[in-house]
Amino acid sequence: MNLNNFFNPKSVVVIGASSDKNKVGFAVMSNLSGCRTSRQIYPVSISESEILGLKTYKSVSDVGLPIDLAIIAVRADIVPQILTECGKRGIKNVIIISAGFKEIGEAGKILENSVKEIANRFKIALLGPNCLGTIDSHADFNTSFGAKKPIRGNIAFLSQSGALGTSVLDMAIKEDVGFSKFISLGNEAQLSEIEFLEYLAVDDNTKAILIYLEKLSDGKRFMELVSEITKTKPVVVLKAGRSERGMEAVMSHTGSLAPADSVFSAALKQSGAIAVESIREFFNMAKLFQLGIMKPLKNLVILTNGGGPSVVTADLIDLSRSLSLVELSDSTKEALRKVLPSMAAVGNPVDIIGDALSSRYEDALKILVDEKGVDAIILMLTPQMMTKVEETAKLIVQYRSKKPIIPVFIGGPTIQAGLEYLKRNTLVNFNFPKDAVEALDNLALCHSREGGNPGKSSYTKSVSDKSSRVSVSKMMDFVEMTKILNEYNISLTGILVKEKTKLISAISKFGSGPYAMKVISNNIVHKTDAGAVRLNIKSIEEANTAWNSMEKRILKENPDARIEGFFIQRMGVGREVIIGMKRDATFGPTILFGLGGILAEAIKDTSLRIAPISKDEALQMMREIKGVSILNGMRGEKPVDFNALADIIANLSRLATEHPEIKEIDLNPVMVTNTEAVVVDARVMI
Amino acid sequence: MNLNNFFNPKSVVVIGASSDKNKVGFAVMSNLSGCRTSRQIYPVSISESEILGLKTYKSVSDVGLPIDLAIIAVRADIVPQILTECGKRGIKNVIIISAGFKEIGEAGKILENSVKEIANRFKIALLGPNCLGTIDSHADFNTSFGAKKPIRGNIAFLSQSGALGTSVLDMAIKEDVGFSKFISLGNEAQLSEIEFLEYLAVDDNTKAILIYLEKLSDGKRFMELVSEITKTKPVVVLKAGRSERGMEAVMSHTGSLAPADSVFSAALKQSGAIAVESIREFFNMAKLFQLGIMKPLKNLVILTNGGGPSVVTADLIDLSRSLSLVELSDSTKEALRKVLPSMAAVGNPVDIIGDALSSRYEDALKILVDEKGVDAIILMLTPQMMTKVEETAKLIVQYRSKKPIIPVFIGGPTIQAGLEYLKRNTLVNFNFPKDAVEALDNLALCHSREGGNPGKSSYTKSVSDKSSRVSVSKMMDFVEMTKILNEYNISLTGILVKEKTKLISAISKFGSGPYAMKVISNNIVHKTDAGAVRLNIKSIEEANTAWNSMEKRILKENPDARIEGFFIQRMGVGREVIIGMKRDATFGPTILFGLGGILAEAIKDTSLRIAPISKDEALQMMREIKGVSILNGMRGEKPVDFNALADIIANLSRLATEHPEIKEIDLNPVMVTNTEAVVVDARVMI
Repeated sequence: MNLNNFFNPKSVVVIGASSDKNKVGFAVMSNLSGCRTSRQIYPVSISESEILGLKTYKSVSDVGLPIDLAIIAVRADIVPQILTECGKRGIKNVIIISAGFKEIGEAGKILENSVKEIANRFKIALLGPNCLGTIDSHADFNTSFGAKKPIRGNIAFLSQSGALGTSVLDMAIKEDVGFSKFISLGNEAQLSEIEFLEYLAVDDNTKAILIYLEKLSDGKRFMELVSEITKTKPVVVLKAGRSERGMEAVMSHTGSLAPADSVFSAALKQSGAIAVESIREFFNMAKLFQLGIMKPLKNLVILTNGGGPSVVTADLIDLSRSLSLVELSDSTKEALRKVLPSMAAVGNPVDIIGDALSSRYEDALKILVDEKGVDAIILMLTPQMMTKVEETAKLIVQYRSKKPIIPVFIGGPTIQAGLEYLKRNTLVNFNFPKDAVEALDNLALCHSREGGNPGKSSYTKSVSDKSSRVSVSKMMDFVEMTKILNEYNISLTGILVKEKTKLISAISKFGSGPYAMKVISNNIVHKTDAGAVRLNIKSIEEANTAWNSMEKRILKENPDARIEGFFIQRMGVGREVIIGMKRDATFGPTILFGLGGILAEAIKDTSLRIAPISKDEALQMMREIKGVSILNGMRGEKPVDFNALADIIANLSRLATEHPEIKEIDLNPVMVTNTEAVVVDARVMI
Repeated sequence: MNLNNFFNPKSVVVIGASSDKNKVGFAVMSNLSGCRTSRQIYPVSISESEILGLKTYKSVSDVGLPIDLAIIAVRADIVPQILTECGKRGIKNVIIISAGFKEIGEAGKILENSVKEIANRFKIALLGPNCLGTIDSHADFNTSFGAKKPIRGNIAFLSQSGALGTSVLDMAIKEDVGFSKFISLGNEAQLSEIEFLEYLAVDDNTKAILIYLEKLSDGKRFMELVSEITKTKPVVVLKAGRSERGMEAVMSHTGSLAPADSVFSAALKQSGAIAVESIREFFNMAKLFQLGIMKPLKNLVILTNGGGPSVVTADLIDLSRSLSLVELSDSTKEALRKVLPSMAAVGNPVDIIGDALSSRYEDALKILVDEKGVDAIILMLTPQMMTKVEETAKLIVQYRSKKPIIPVFIGGPTIQAGLEYLKRNTLVNFNFPKDAVEALDNLALCHSREGGNPGKSSYTKSVSDKSSRVSVSKMMDFVEMTKILNEYNISLTGILVKEKTKLISAISKFGSGPYAMKVISNNIVHKTDAGAVRLNIKSIEEANTAWNSMEKRILKENPDARIEGFFIQRMGVGREVIIGMKRDATFGPTILFGLGGILAEAIKDTSLRIAPISKDEALQMMREIKGVSILNGMRGEKPVDFNALADIIANLSRLATEHPEIKEIDLNPVMVTNTEAVVVDARVMI
């Protein structure tokens, strides 16, 4: 497929062209004609003979010349017929603007399926239906009907919502944020975010990518792709349907189910994408990219003429997840002291105080751009009596090649001239310190996975994952389970005792206790609930008592239960953790790590990854839980054996990837000390 | 003191008036002359005979007429002399604009003290030094030198930073947010936020108050006042110095120490104030007030012409701390279905889809304004081809008397006409859904304390609190401690056993165990560390062993330790919690509640209040901890006896308030079941 024809075709046919200003067919024609004239535009209309000075055709078949792209803006019910004509005519790229498909319910879904089928039959690359088309600011091409054309820039914007697309593009015009390409994905009958991401990955005009997502067609492939792209271009994802009500709204609006938020967030993080939660954050990322900042800048210095606002900014940076204020070197402080008045503060924030002219900003800037260890300067300006707004803006343009400078001019009419100057130089201002800090923090938090290998399962496998979801789960037999876990070096080290008389000799084989004892029976799914697990058994006497009482209880509650024996393990002391695997319909196997115990359960203190994950990543995911200091060793304890835990996690990840028939694995509890990790109990669902 | 003369004096003298446009003395004159002319303005200048058409005087003494207010804008070193002249002249209100006082270090501090002393001697009400003066938009009065004058409004703005003041005021001019009064507090040599808050509390033109705070002169009085004000007017506080770096910056910038953030946050919450963390949030609160929204609106409905942006907004609301999307009634959905096209969504969000004209907005609005249970409508507009921006803005003006409507038009040039229309009607637009949701959420979270009685300690007491901080702490004797705790119904129910022979009879007095045993000795401060506490003792044998081994260990480590006996308690099973009291230098006694155990310690899961607190508030603070579901009963358990815990907390609060000599109390652990709460160990520092 040649997606290039969606952005820079030599010839375009518009089916449903119109000269009625209230019709989409007019807006498309008008936007197209407003672009570069070397492109051939052929309007097709049944009722009109001329539109915007161009002769019309009665049908696509009447156009006798080559056609790179067809844009369809006719009533939904005749779209299949028109698309078939395009197919017969040999057109390979089609955008269907028309609405009235999947989004309106069952009837529309049937119509959309037929459209998809026609496109596939004629090997047409199809964008839409129910979309706003595409914009390419470099090729000067605009098929959209809603938005004004953005200025030329480096950012590509993929949107599964037309309304969100037009809003952001309109906002970008006001704030002078430039875009390379805009793609409104619509219903994605055929082409989805995946194909366009593949295209944008190698697009030279695109240095950063923004995506608004409501649904995902292929989670695994999405992760692979984004992991690859984020090595060179930042990817920002605004994902809708993070909450229950949001999910309902997505459903009613697109008819699609969004992936569960926790899993999607894990997938984005692993892929090195920047996940944002609001249009405001989304747009502020675009502003950062417009400033040419595509890579993390963590170590910051604030240069300001206003004390209060700089203190608030210092707070925001200090309390951010990944940014910090640099401690300036003594020589830099000394140099600043020499050029600044005595009342100025030469710490960080560098406060050159309210009466600073632009020359004082320049004096400080000259010194700060050379300071080692500073990644960027946040240049704050408040409108005071003497403030030279435009001259200060000039300094940003002048010095930004030496060190990234982030302008934060705070005010209204008084600072306007400065903002205008920045605009003329394709720069933007952050209106509030928080906007800049949030964007920098988001960028710094994203980093492509190091050492990890992103999901390699093929699309076929991920389909098989999906199909496995619908069948009913059952628990794997104990012997089979220990066998498969052993294959991946996850051992429930213990002894299966089938007769009570052999209990003493079994226990004496272990070192000191305590021991865990559990009933092995295929009739019991939730062992703890059924009273079929005893922990902290300290002596042979206790083991005997436990045997009797467990047996009695189980047979009382379920006289037909078949007890195969008791599994005895040395528990190990130390901390209790949980390691789990669950297969997600969109992304495949996910791996969970968490602390054991009731408080951990209450506060849901877990971290999540999409498999496969490496040992390094396993180490990292353990460090993410809130209560990690317990594992690091509090009150003078030694840290637990993270390495042993990471081995179990990585092995579990491998097992999950190689055994698609397994739906769920719980290793719970796993006891970990500073020298070992022991899997005390496990459960596998197939 | 008559603070009114700072805002609406009949006559003003400006000392240091100038016609040099680079001087503050010119800016002040120019701002004053730009105001209502019925006011008498007397410029005082040594070198000039006329300024802005007004005859000058050589000194204050030369002005033979009554003077309500003096504004001083001369060199710092001659301020004492000028202020003395003002005093002698009988002027009772003075604003010192001049900088060069406390903020520059030791020399400035001495100068500032002398200024303060002069003001007190002559009974002058003094604002400043190092401030921007005052603005009153209703009296049309402006003494500030930096900012343009804001439009008339209902919001008062108190700022401890001049730069932050001018920035926000300038921004407000751009966005048409009106203010009633602005007060730049400067160094607060004499008058502070307290006196101006007292004044604003009863100011009829002020319906809401914004405060930027870096320091606090009297924490107790501040809480009292804010608690009183928030019963009728919302108070928003942007507090600087929340982080370590922010605190350092405040120090270098004002020479003052900000109160600890956790304590300050607790104080604000208890006072019913809205604490915000950024200028962005601060300003968005002002926008909400400009829309006339001063009271919590929690139950929302979204009306939109764009699917994607409304889904993102639904997510933000659903994930907010206190807002929710209303479930529309069936009759309302039915009514909406009748007037809207079939593709529209009549859930919440109500999506009237992209081709909606303003008439469709109106059809939906007519129905939604009558829906019971809806507190406010978020009216979202995205710029689509058919969108009628200005007409839709008109609907907001038209229907907002029936139900609060919050405009969220998202875009740039295309929506401009709508924003202009809103402005002309003194309304504002939220540029991003997140801005509106965040502001509504902040407002909804604030509520004046119900049933609680705000701190009543006098300023004198809070001074004595401060003085108690400097002395060295020592641990209170066990007998004395149990006595004082008992007086407040906090009993360490147990038996002090002085001889080992009496151990058996003591234990037999209790019901079933387990028991706690601890050494009573004034030589041991940290009992647990010294091995002087044993928990979970199950039998008399274990108690005997514990006695011997604790005695042995203590005497081994400290042969001179005097063991008075062992204190034996029935532990009670159940959950372990911690209740504590610590005296803060600014706010007095604070009460802490948290879960016991190592994970709770690791994640710092505690809640904090300023004493005194009522039992109701005690109940509420327990519900705030992250792991509260443990106390509510997980896995089918019964909830713990919250009532018994609340009694202990309220009693501890009373004890702390009535015993200023006590610095710290730890009740740790307190064991709580569903029927009782037992204080197992306590420690009191004096």
